[in-house]
Amino acid sequence: MTPAPPFDVERLARLAREQQVDVVLASTRHNVRYLTGGYYLHFFARASRFGGGQYLSFVAVPVARPHSAFYVGRRDQILDEQHYIDAFGPFWIADRHWVPRGPSMSEDAAAVAARALRAGGHGAATVAIESSFLPADAYDALRRELPEATFVNAAPLLGELRAIKQPRELERLRDVHRLTAEVIRRAFYESTASDTTGEISAKIQRHVGERGAGFLYSLVNVGPGLLRAPSSEPWGRGRPMHLDVGAELDEYVADVARMGSVGAPPAEAAALFEVCVAAQTRVRAAVGPGVTCGEVWHTGTDAVKTGPAAEYGRLLVHGLGMVSHEPPVVAEDGPRRLEPGMVLSIETEVRHPDVGHIKIEDSVVVTRDGCEGLGDVDRDWCVVAGG
Amino acid sequence: MTPAPPFDVERLARLAREQQVDVVLASTRHNVRYLTGGYYLHFFARASRFGGGQYLSFVAVPVARPHSAFYVGRRDQILDEQHYIDAFGPFWIADRHWVPRGPSMSEDAAAVAARALRAGGHGAATVAIESSFLPADAYDALRRELPEATFVNAAPLLGELRAIKQPRELERLRDVHRLTAEVIRRAFYESTASDTTGEISAKIQRHVGERGAGFLYSLVNVGPGLLRAPSSEPWGRGRPMHLDVGAELDEYVADVARMGSVGAPPAEAAALFEVCVAAQTRVRAAVGPGVTCGEVWHTGTDAVKTGPAAEYGRLLVHGLGMVSHEPPVVAEDGPRRLEPGMVLSIETEVRHPDVGHIKIEDSVVVTRDGCEGLGDVDRDWCVVAGG
Repeated sequence: MTPAPPFDVERLARLAREQQVDVVLASTRHNVRYLTGGYYLHFFARASRFGGGQYLSFVAVPVARPHSAFYVGRRDQILDEQHYIDAFGPFWIADRHWVPRGPSMSEDAAAVAARALRAGGHGAATVAIESSFLPADAYDALRRELPEATFVNAAPLLGELRAIKQPRELERLRDVHRLTAEVIRRAFYESTASDTTGEISAKIQRHVGERGAGFLYSLVNVGPGLLRAPSSEPWGRGRPMHLDVGAELDEYVADVARMGSVGAPPAEAAALFEVCVAAQTRVRAAVGPGVTCGEVWHTGTDAVKTGPAAEYGRLLVHGLGMVSHEPPVVAEDGPRRLEPGMVLSIETEVRHPDVGHIKIEDSVVVTRDGCEGLGDVDRDWCVVAGG
Repeated sequence: MTPAPPFDVERLARLAREQQVDVVLASTRHNVRYLTGGYYLHFFARASRFGGGQYLSFVAVPVARPHSAFYVGRRDQILDEQHYIDAFGPFWIADRHWVPRGPSMSEDAAAVAARALRAGGHGAATVAIESSFLPADAYDALRRELPEATFVNAAPLLGELRAIKQPRELERLRDVHRLTAEVIRRAFYESTASDTTGEISAKIQRHVGERGAGFLYSLVNVGPGLLRAPSSEPWGRGRPMHLDVGAELDEYVADVARMGSVGAPPAEAAALFEVCVAAQTRVRAAVGPGVTCGEVWHTGTDAVKTGPAAEYGRLLVHGLGMVSHEPPVVAEDGPRRLEPGMVLSIETEVRHPDVGHIKIEDSVVVTRDGCEGLGDVDRDWCVVAGG
């Protein structure tokens, strides 16, 4: 039995019409996964480079007839089509095109996609490509094979499509945020004053991997001083450290920041942290369906630019899902209204020249009557003995 | 003090002259790291996608004056240039260009690179770009800003440049191969007959992460049957399983395959494995400086296509370093002669329709008088109780 498309087909069609797109041609791992329901050839999912080139697959969705979508990929490591089903389960896209072995994996895949588009009557269509990702040789092949087509950037359309999360996506986001917060807490407890921020970040990386997730980054600051990168600087006693960690689980990303210190934090740092936490609470109270992004921005900015953080406090709120900083965009003058299923990562921080970089960050999902934290555990300032 | 370039500048110049290239413009993470000596902005090193686009940095090396190389990148998460030095140490490229925040990270970076090339007198140069990786919008920007330049693919040049490994690279390759072989052995021992190949692959992933390396893939087969992907198939008792695992450490990749079974392997599988191991030994005995790739291919193919493996035995030998299947290319008619410092991954395998996919794979470095295994531990067939 063929499963249903894993995304909101009506929403895709509406967005494409608004943006005058005839065919969506996705090629990044995250958008191919989004449109296929999780599928990406396992051999290349984490290492696309191979030989002199890189693996490339496509999902093409013709907007007028989404159910005639097709897939273009390689069968490396897969001997026959039944193996796909054995390994990945049924695939809603029945029209699958296999790229023959040739001199360039990416150019060859694009040529196959282009010919399939032409055969489907899309030779002169407006095709939305992922132009900040599609390799130059594949782009050349598309233009050569489809000289009458118009190519536009698919990022606005695909970003909007993904902006409303489904329950299974929220489950993944909850999992990856919780594990990231837990890994940060564990790294605090396992570290001492003499550990460097580079060593502490390496622990984060190993612990994220051990949990079966993908490590993305560990931004780290020890105050005073504003360097925000793993380095040879030791944590030290009584110094505020933030760990701002990115991780990934089945393509869904977490972005979590926490504070910790060996022994009690300096009073100024603790006071700035209190402002950050109180601002988080204020923002969460403001978030809900129908609220504009601008209102969220003003509420949060007012809340964090207060008391000892008046000068250096800063709010940053951004959408989050398969991509960090995906829609909705939250800015000072954002007229857009929040909708249930949108996910916001809320960062409240103070980059104080005499204290350091104090911050806390968690994500929330907009619900029917407000919002709800996603795996937002271990939020308090972590004081460790670190002896 | 400015360090020396971390790569062989003379070799680059010679290869570029042969290929009539004036400027090498690298943009992939691995080649940027290769040319900078390890540097890549930490925030984006494992997650290039951000907002509607992706991070992109460049290293440009003018062939006639390699020491006038320049770097193009962003300062996100880095407040000032001193932070680079604090976090990453001295950087041999002094001419650094910072990309301002703009609508497209990749296009904006390319525009900065193009203007720097023009300012350096390379407006009409032959520029080698990584055309299977460079994003379409960056490519458009280069062509728009440098209408008189000629763009060619940098992959052959950069692949050849990397083909001869330096001692520090061999050290990394040794480390990552050893840890991969150890992780496979551990996964065998921690698994039972009822574990599925999907569950066993998930263990591999977690153990690779726990060792601080990046998990790339786990190709897995349980014979009989030739499916080579993690699935819901249980290992089972007395069934041959291969695990063929890719991992990455500081950009250097490992590619290691091992066999195991719960209880004794079937006699046919053990006999095929013996052929594979003996063929490995024969290939290693043949590898050394001055030997042609074709000779290696014939020696190994003869050795593996023998006895019970006569029909289905296969040899595959490929270069390996920052990329799997990088130069040298080992094929039937390969006239190229091996040189010290080249690394070969040797795969001997039998895809037998009645037994399964039997294989062993390890990498060697060509030395002055032969070759030497790289972290090639735990090579024997692993029999576990698995109860």
